[in-house]
Amino acid sequence: MPGVPPTRFVYLGPESTFTEQALLTIPAAGRGIRTPARSVPEALEAVRAGDADAALVPWENSIGGAVGVTLDELVDGDPLVITREVVIPVQFVLAVRSGTTLDAVRSIAAHPQASTQCRGWLRAYAPDATVIDVLSNGAAAAGVAAGDFDAAICAPIAIQRFGLHQLADKIADHPDAATRFVLLSRPGTPPEPTGNDLTSLAVWISHDRVGALLAVLTELAVRGVNLTRIESRPTGERLGRYVFFLDCTGHVAEARVGEALQGLRRICAGVRFLGSYPRAGLPGAAPERPVPPPPGLSDPDYTDAAAWLGRLRRGELA
Amino acid sequence: MPGVPPTRFVYLGPESTFTEQALLTIPAAGRGIRTPARSVPEALEAVRAGDADAALVPWENSIGGAVGVTLDELVDGDPLVITREVVIPVQFVLAVRSGTTLDAVRSIAAHPQASTQCRGWLRAYAPDATVIDVLSNGAAAAGVAAGDFDAAICAPIAIQRFGLHQLADKIADHPDAATRFVLLSRPGTPPEPTGNDLTSLAVWISHDRVGALLAVLTELAVRGVNLTRIESRPTGERLGRYVFFLDCTGHVAEARVGEALQGLRRICAGVRFLGSYPRAGLPGAAPERPVPPPPGLSDPDYTDAAAWLGRLRRGELA
Amino acid sequence: MPGVPPTRFVYLGPESTFTEQALLTIPAAGRGIRTPARSVPEALEAVRAGDADAALVPWENSIGGAVGVTLDELVDGDPLVITREVVIPVQFVLAVRSGTTLDAVRSIAAHPQASTQCRGWLRAYAPDATVIDVLSNGAAAAGVAAGDFDAAICAPIAIQRFGLHQLADKIADHPDAATRFVLLSRPGTPPEPTGNDLTSLAVWISHDRVGALLAVLTELAVRGVNLTRIESRPTGERLGRYVFFLDCTGHVAEARVGEALQGLRRICAGVRFLGSYPRAGLPGAAPERPVPPPPGLSDPDYTDAAAWLGRLRRGELA
Amino acid sequence: MPGVPPTRFVYLGPESTFTEQALLTIPAAGRGIRTPARSVPEALEAVRAGDADAALVPWENSIGGAVGVTLDELVDGDPLVITREVVIPVQFVLAVRSGTTLDAVRSIAAHPQASTQCRGWLRAYAPDATVIDVLSNGAAAAGVAAGDFDAAICAPIAIQRFGLHQLADKIADHPDAATRFVLLSRPGTPPEPTGNDLTSLAVWISHDRVGALLAVLTELAVRGVNLTRIESRPTGERLGRYVFFLDCTGHVAEARVGEALQGLRRICAGVRFLGSYPRAGLPGAAPERPVPPPPGLSDPDYTDAAAWLGRLRRGELA
Repeated sequence: MPGVPPTRFVYLGPESTFTEQALLTIPAAGRGIRTPARSVPEALEAVRAGDADAALVPWENSIGGAVGVTLDELVDGDPLVITREVVIPVQFVLAVRSGTTLDAVRSIAAHPQASTQCRGWLRAYAPDATVIDVLSNGAAAAGVAAGDFDAAICAPIAIQRFGLHQLADKIADHPDAATRFVLLSRPGTPPEPTGNDLTSLAVWISHDRVGALLAVLTELAVRGVNLTRIESRPTGERLGRYVFFLDCTGHVAEARVGEALQGLRRICAGVRFLGSYPRAGLPGAAPERPVPPPPGLSDPDYTDAAAWLGRLRRGELA
Repeated sequence: MPGVPPTRFVYLGPESTFTEQALLTIPAAGRGIRTPARSVPEALEAVRAGDADAALVPWENSIGGAVGVTLDELVDGDPLVITREVVIPVQFVLAVRSGTTLDAVRSIAAHPQASTQCRGWLRAYAPDATVIDVLSNGAAAAGVAAGDFDAAICAPIAIQRFGLHQLADKIADHPDAATRFVLLSRPGTPPEPTGNDLTSLAVWISHDRVGALLAVLTELAVRGVNLTRIESRPTGERLGRYVFFLDCTGHVAEARVGEALQGLRRICAGVRFLGSYPRAGLPGAAPERPVPPPPGLSDPDYTDAAAWLGRLRRGELA
Repeated sequence: MPGVPPTRFVYLGPESTFTEQALLTIPAAGRGIRTPARSVPEALEAVRAGDADAALVPWENSIGGAVGVTLDELVDGDPLVITREVVIPVQFVLAVRSGTTLDAVRSIAAHPQASTQCRGWLRAYAPDATVIDVLSNGAAAAGVAAGDFDAAICAPIAIQRFGLHQLADKIADHPDAATRFVLLSRPGTPPEPTGNDLTSLAVWISHDRVGALLAVLTELAVRGVNLTRIESRPTGERLGRYVFFLDCTGHVAEARVGEALQGLRRICAGVRFLGSYPRAGLPGAAPERPVPPPPGLSDPDYTDAAAWLGRLRRGELA
Repeated sequence: MPGVPPTRFVYLGPESTFTEQALLTIPAAGRGIRTPARSVPEALEAVRAGDADAALVPWENSIGGAVGVTLDELVDGDPLVITREVVIPVQFVLAVRSGTTLDAVRSIAAHPQASTQCRGWLRAYAPDATVIDVLSNGAAAAGVAAGDFDAAICAPIAIQRFGLHQLADKIADHPDAATRFVLLSRPGTPPEPTGNDLTSLAVWISHDRVGALLAVLTELAVRGVNLTRIESRPTGERLGRYVFFLDCTGHVAEARVGEALQGLRRICAGVRFLGSYPRAGLPGAAPERPVPPPPGLSDPDYTDAAAWLGRLRRGELA
C-alpha cells in the first residue's frame, strides 16, 4: 500500500454481518466509503478492476475452517495481496422485535453455519422453535424486522441497524470462536515489518517428486520460519492435485523469510505470494506473542554471514 | 467388517443425487436396503446407533475440496472406520421436461456448488436464463418435474428418476471433476490388504512443539509411507488449532504402516485411525498404480530386520 | 558375557603403559590373568581364537582421535563385541633414575604421540634436551632404567614398575586429555541395560543413494537416539568409500534403539553391531549424565503404541 | 592464488617418497623450487612464514584414512587454503640392489604403513624375510642403497633416485589404493570454478544443541550440496568434542554453496573455510564425473529466485 491509503472499501455483504463489523474496526474504513458485495468473487473483482481500493473478506473461521471461495479466488486471476488481517469474535446474538419474549419465539431465521454454531443453545433454550435457513445473518435480521420471522441469529451489529432487541447474547456453543478476515489490495510495497508479522503463500508442489510437501516444510524449518497454518485446496484439475495455502511467521522483508521464499520458488511448481502483514489479535486482547527468529536466524545474523561469505570469495580469511 | 457383510445402507440424501449414484456402484448396496439421510451427521448417527450397517457420504470433491462436515463428524463421537472408497465423475447434465428446448429455458434450478461448476457452460449456452439456488441436485430435478423451473442442473441418475429429458450432458467446466465418497462402518477387522490400499488418519499435533507437522511428515517418510492428501480442519476451540486428516498409501496390516502409526501415536497429542481400504479409481478406469514400498521397506525387509535384532539381543552374531 | 565372567585378559602391550593401567581398573582383570599383546590385531586374534576371554585395546584418544587399527580390525574377521569401556586420564610423567635432576637431563625417550602431547612442557622446561623416538611409553621407561636415556615420558604405572623417580607429573599440554579403551569379547548376551549405556555400530552406506548419511542420522533422530560420536574409516577399496563408526546413547535392549537399528539394517548396505555397554566416566569423576529418551520414546511409550496398533489391527477401536 | 603463481614449493619429505612424486605432477612445481620438510607442521609453517608459496602434504589415504596431523594443523594457526588436490595411486615396488634375487632377500626395510599395505604379498612371496620398520619409504630405499638391508618397499620414484632395481611392482594388497594430497597456500582468491570442484570445511558444532550434526547435513542437503567425505577429529579439549572436516561438491563462488556456507556460519559454533579447488582424478584416469546441481539449484535458478524476491519486496507482482 504505497503512498495513498485506501479510501474505497468493498466487503462481503450484505450489510449488518460480521464482515461489516470487522471492517469498521479499521479506522480508514470507518472514514471511507464502504460498499457491500454480493459475493467474494464480486468483492475481489471490484479491487482488481480498480473500482475499490481494498476488499475485506472472510479467510478462516475457528469453527467452519478455511473459507474456500476466498482461497480459490486468490489463486486465479490477477494477483491481490493481503495488507491487513482482522480477527473478531463470533458472538452471535438472538434478535427479536421489541416486546417478543423467548416463550413466544416460534421461528428463528439463521444462516445454516450460524444455527450450526448455536446448536447447543437452541436445544437448551428454544427446543421447540423452527429454524429457517436464510442466506446470511443480515438477511435473518432483516426478516425479523419485516415480520417474517420471530427471531434471528445474527451479529451484534444488526441489532441497532434494524432496531431490534437483543434477547440473548453469546449464544454460540464455542465461546472462543473467532473469524479471521483479510483486507486485499492490488499489489504494492508490503506494509512495514512490525516484528510480529505473518506471510501468506499459495504453493503448488511438484507431483512427480516424492516427499514434496516434506521438502516444502523443510525449506521453511531450515530458515526457522514457523508455519502457523496449512490448508489444501483442490486445483480443480482432478482428484489428488492440491494447492497449499501457508501462513508463516515473519515478513518478506526479513532475510530468513526472503531466503525461505527463494527456496520455495526454486523447488516448487509454483508459488504465489499473498502478502506480509501485521499479525492481529482479538480486539481488546493481546495479540499472540511474536515468535522471535531462532538463534542464528535474525537479520543481523544473515548480514554477518553474507559479509563473511563475501570475504571468503575475495580470499580475505585472515 | 468381520463375517457378516453390510446389508442396510444409509447415504446422504435426498434420492437421485451423486451419492445415491455412487452407492449403486457397490454390489452389496444394489442388493441391500438403501435409506437416504437428511444430513451427514444423521447418516453417521444411523450407523453408530446400529440402525444401519454402513453409511456412504461424500469425502472430497476435486472442485470444492474436502467435505468439512464429514471430516468433523468423524473426529467427534464414537469411532467409525472407512471400509471402502467410491470415486465417480461429476458429470452434470441439464434436465428439462420433454419438449422444452434450450431457447425456451428461462429458469435453471441448481445447488450453488453445481451452478458454480457449470459457470462456463451457462455463460456460453444459457446466458439469459436465471439461476435459482436450491438445496440439492435432487431438489432441482424434482422442481423441474413439478413444473417449478424450466431446467435443472443435476446428476444423470435424476433423469430417469423424474422422467426428464437430458438437454445437454457433461456441462461441468472441468471435464475430469470427480468426487470421492467413503463407506463408513462401526469398527471391525479392516478389509484384507490388496497391495493398493489407503489408510486414513486424523492427527492432533502438539502445539507446544516447534515443527510438529514436519515431525509428523518425517515419521511417515522415514518408513516410506507416502502422503496422498492432507487436510486441516479447525478443532473449534480457537483460531490456530487444527486437526489434520491424512490419507497415506499402504494398509495398517503392513509393517511399515504399522511402525509409522506407532511413531505418530508416540509423538502426537492424538491419533484417530479412520480405516485401511482398497484404493478406488473412476469406474471403468484403471486405478492409480499402487506405490510399492521403497527398497528396504517391504514386509519381508521388516521381518528380516526384526529377526536380525532378535539375534543381536541374544548375542548370536556369528 | 553370558554366565561365566572373563578371567583371561589380553591387552595392547607392552607392560607398564596406559592400557595396562586401564585394565587394572577392571576388578575381574585385577584378579585374572593379564597378557600383553604386541599389537591390536594380535590382541583381538587371541580372543577370536579362544586363547583369551577379553581384550582391552585403545578406542579413542582426546588428542589423537580414533585408534584406526582398532576400528579396522573390528570390521574384518569374526565379530567381537564391546562389553565395557574404560576411560582414563592421560597424565604423562617425566621419569628418571633416582638422583637425576632436570638440569642433567640431556636425552628424553618418548613415543612420538607422547612427546607431541607434551610439546609445551618440553619447550618450557627442557628446551635443550634431545627427544628420542621409541616404540612405546613402556619402552621409554625401560630404556631409562637400563641407562640408555636420561629421562622418559611415560605413564604413572611405569614409575614403580621400573623403580624410577618421578621428576614431574601432569606434563601433557591438555590437562583434560583422556583415552577410551574398550573391552572386547566374543559375542554373547549384552550386559544388562543400566539406564546410561552406549551402543556402538559400524555402518556401510549405500553409495548410489544421495544423502545416504543424512538418512542414517535421520533414522536415529526419529527414534530419539542421540549420536555421541561418528568416525569414518576408508574401506580400503578406493578413495571415497567409507565405513562409519557410530556411538549412540541407549542399549540394544531398549525399544527405540532396537527400532533404530532395524531401520539402519533396512536402508544401509551393511551394519555390524559392536556392542551395548555401560557408559564410563573418568575414574573418580561422575559419568556424563544419562540422556533420557525424549518424550514419547521410552520403553513404556513403545509398549503402549504397540498395544494400540494391535487393537487397530483387530478392529478394537472403541 | 591471485596474480602470481607459486614458484617455491615445500612438501612432506624426505625426498623420493610418494609426496614428491605427487608434487612432480604439478607443472609449476616441476619448474619451481622444491624443498622437502621434515614434518607436516614444518611444511605448513614454511608457507605461513612466507618462506614458501605452497605446501604439498598428504590429506587422505584409501587405506589408512585421514592424515590426522594435516587436519589438526589446518585448524590451528593462521588460515591456509587448499588450491589444488593431487591423487596418485599407491603403487609400492620392491627395490633391491642390482643382482639381488628374491630368494636372497633376508631383510626388508619399510615404513610400517607400507609393510601393512603389502602384507599379503609379503606372506606369499617373502614369508621368511624379516621386515624392519624405518621412518619413511625414502629411508627404506636409501638403506638398501647403503647396503643396510636387502630390499625396500618404496615408491617407484625411489628406484631411479637411488639406482636400485625393481624386483616386483604393484605389490600392495589393494591394487586401487590411492592417496590424496593437497596443495596449501596463504589465503587468496580461490581458483576459478571449473564445474567440477570440491569445497573443504572445518566445522565445530554447538554441543548444547541436540541433533547438531543432523542440522549441519540438512543445511547442505537443502541446497543440494553433496557431501563426499566427513571426518571427525578431537578438538583436544576433552573426549566427546570434535571438529568435523567436510568435503562437499561445488565451489564457494556458486550460489548454492554460498548459501549453504552462510547457513553453517549461522548455526555452527565455528566454520573454517579450507578452500574450493578442482576435483582431481588419478593421473591418466577420468576424474569422477561432476555432480550437477539438482533441479532448481543451479546459479541461474538462484538468480531467478533472487530477482523474484526483489519484485515481491517492491510489490511488483503483476
